[in-house]
Amino acid sequence: MTITSYTELSTEFERYFTKVIAGLPAQPGNLYQPVTYFLDLGGKRLRPLLVLIAADCFNADAKKALPAAASVELFHNFSLIHDDIMDNAPLRRGKQTVHEKWNDNIAILSGDVLLVKAYQQIALSGFFKELQEIFSVTAIQVCEGQQYDMDFESRESVSIESYLEMIRLKTAVLLACSLQMGAVCAGADRKAASVFYTAGESMGMAFQLTDDYLDIFGNSEKTGKQEGGDIISNKKTWLLIKAFELADDVQRKTLAAWTEKKEFDVKEKIHAIKKIFGELKLNMLLEKEIAFYYEKAFTDLRAVCPNESKIENFISFIKTFMHREK
Amino acid sequence: MTITSYTELSTEFERYFTKVIAGLPAQPGNLYQPVTYFLDLGGKRLRPLLVLIAADCFNADAKKALPAAASVELFHNFSLIHDDIMDNAPLRRGKQTVHEKWNDNIAILSGDVLLVKAYQQIALSGFFKELQEIFSVTAIQVCEGQQYDMDFESRESVSIESYLEMIRLKTAVLLACSLQMGAVCAGADRKAASVFYTAGESMGMAFQLTDDYLDIFGNSEKTGKQEGGDIISNKKTWLLIKAFELADDVQRKTLAAWTEKKEFDVKEKIHAIKKIFGELKLNMLLEKEIAFYYEKAFTDLRAVCPNESKIENFISFIKTFMHREK
Repeated sequence: MTITSYTELSTEFERYFTKVIAGLPAQPGNLYQPVTYFLDLGGKRLRPLLVLIAADCFNADAKKALPAAASVELFHNFSLIHDDIMDNAPLRRGKQTVHEKWNDNIAILSGDVLLVKAYQQIALSGFFKELQEIFSVTAIQVCEGQQYDMDFESRESVSIESYLEMIRLKTAVLLACSLQMGAVCAGADRKAASVFYTAGESMGMAFQLTDDYLDIFGNSEKTGKQEGGDIISNKKTWLLIKAFELADDVQRKTLAAWTEKKEFDVKEKIHAIKKIFGELKLNMLLEKEIAFYYEKAFTDLRAVCPNESKIENFISFIKTFMHREK
Repeated sequence: MTITSYTELSTEFERYFTKVIAGLPAQPGNLYQPVTYFLDLGGKRLRPLLVLIAADCFNADAKKALPAAASVELFHNFSLIHDDIMDNAPLRRGKQTVHEKWNDNIAILSGDVLLVKAYQQIALSGFFKELQEIFSVTAIQVCEGQQYDMDFESRESVSIESYLEMIRLKTAVLLACSLQMGAVCAGADRKAASVFYTAGESMGMAFQLTDDYLDIFGNSEKTGKQEGGDIISNKKTWLLIKAFELADDVQRKTLAAWTEKKEFDVKEKIHAIKKIFGELKLNMLLEKEIAFYYEKAFTDLRAVCPNESKIENFISFIKTFMHREK
C-alpha cells in the first residue's frame, strides 16, 4: 500500500458526502441554500480522511467509517460557519462566508442544522454510543476553545501554556476525535483507540503551530494568505507570546510600541517584528516545537501499530504535512 | 391520582436539572456563566414535564425519563438563546437575554454548547438510538420553523396553511417530541409512542394559537405582555392572516392602511384592527380552532389509553392550559 491509496479513501468519502449533501431538503431555501453552498466550498476534508485512515489502519473496511467521517466534516463546517460570524470573517476558502453572503441569522441557523446533521450521521454508525460520547465531549471542547480564543483578544497577555491549551481545544481535539472515531469504527480496543486520540491531538497541535509559523515565515504566494496577517492584527500566537517572553528590555519595548500603535505602515510593522522574531531565533524554536508534536504522534502510532506497513504509510502521509508550505 | 401529583414530577425534574446545571464546568467563565444564567431563569419547564407525564402514563418510573426530559429542556433553551439573537429580543422571562447581557458571539456559543449538552443527556437514556432519531428530526424542524418565521416577516402575504405549518415546525413538534420521548422511555410500543407524538403536536398547535389569541383578546395585566404587540409589529399571526382572508373590500383597505402606516398612535391602531377582528368574529373562530386541536389531542390520548385514570388526569391537566390567561 502506498500513500496514493488515500486517494481512494478521499474519493470514497467525496462520493458518500456528495450523497449526504444531495439528500438535504430544498425548503426552506434560505436555510438549505447556505448550508449546501458552504458544504460545496470543499476544503481539505482532512478530518474525515483521518477517520477513514484510522479505520484502515485497523484493517477495517473504510466504508464502515463513512458516516463517522461525514459527522466530523459536518461538525467542522458547523464550527466554521459560526466562527466566521464571531470573527467577522468576509471570506472562507476564497469565497464569501455565509453571514456575508446572506446574514448573521441565516448563518446561525445554518450552523445549528449542520450540528444536528452531524449527530444524525453518528447515529448511522454501528458504534453509536461510543462515538457519540467522544464526539460530544469534543464538540464542547471546540466551543470552549473558541471562547478562550475570543477571550484572549481582549486580554493584556496570555501565557504559552494558556495558548497551547486554547489551540488544543479549538483545533487539536477534533483531529484527535477523528482518529479515535475511525479506530472505534474499526472495532479497535479502547486503549488503542485512545492512543490514536492522543496521536491526533499531537498532530493537531503541530498543525496549528505550523499555521502560526507560515503566517510570517511562509511564502504568502503559496499560503494564499496575507503575509504577517497575525502580526498586523496583534494576534497572540505562539510567536508573539514567545517573543514577549524571551525578549530583553529593548526588544520588549519595541514589540510593545508596535503592538500599541493604532496607525502604522503594514510592511514596516511586519519587518520590525519579524526582525525581533529572528533575533530570538523563534523560527528555529517553533520548528522544534512543531517537530516535537509530530514525533510524539509518530511514537504513539508506532506504539499501537495494528499493522506496521499501514502505520508507516500513515506516518509518511503526515510527514507531507510537516513540510507543507500552505 | 390527582393533578397535584404532577408537582412531584416537577420537583423531581427540578432536582435532576439543578444537578445538570451544577455539573457544568466553571471555565471558560464567558461561556458557562451565560449558560448557567439562562438556565437559571427558569421558565415553565413544560416540555420536560410532558416527557415525564408521558412516561408516567405508560406506568413507568418517571426517573427513567429524567435525562430525556433534561434533553428537551436544554434544547429548548438552546433555541431560545439563538432565537433571541435573531429576533433582537432584549428580554426573556423578564430578564436580559444572553446576547444583550453579554454579546452575540457569546450567545451563539452558549446556544451551541446547550445543543451538545442536550445530546449528552439523550446518551444517558436507555433508548438512545430511538430517542436520538426523534430528537434530531425535531431539532431540524425547529430550525426550519424559525427560518420560515423569519422569511414570513419580509413576505407580502402568508397563507393560513403556511402559517400553521410554520408554527407546527417552530413550536408544536417539540411538544410532540417530548410526549413521544417520554413514551419511548417508558417502553411504549412504536404505535402508541407515535400517537403520543401526534397528540403533542395538536397540543402545540393549540398552545401557539392561544398565544396569538391572548395577544389581543387577553388581559395584558395577566399575560405580562404588551397588549396587541403582534398588531403593533404587523406580525403575520393567525388573526391577521385570517382577517385579510375574510375581510370585505372596505375592511381590507382599512387593514392595509394600518399595516402600511409607519407612524401611528399605538392604541388607535390596536383599536381599529381589533374592531375588524371583532366584526369578522375572529375571536370565536380562533377559539374554535384552538378547541379543535385540543379535542384532537384528547381523542388521540384516549385512543392509546395505556392507563385510563392517568390519561384522564393528563387531559385535565391540559385543560388547565386551554383556559390559561397568560
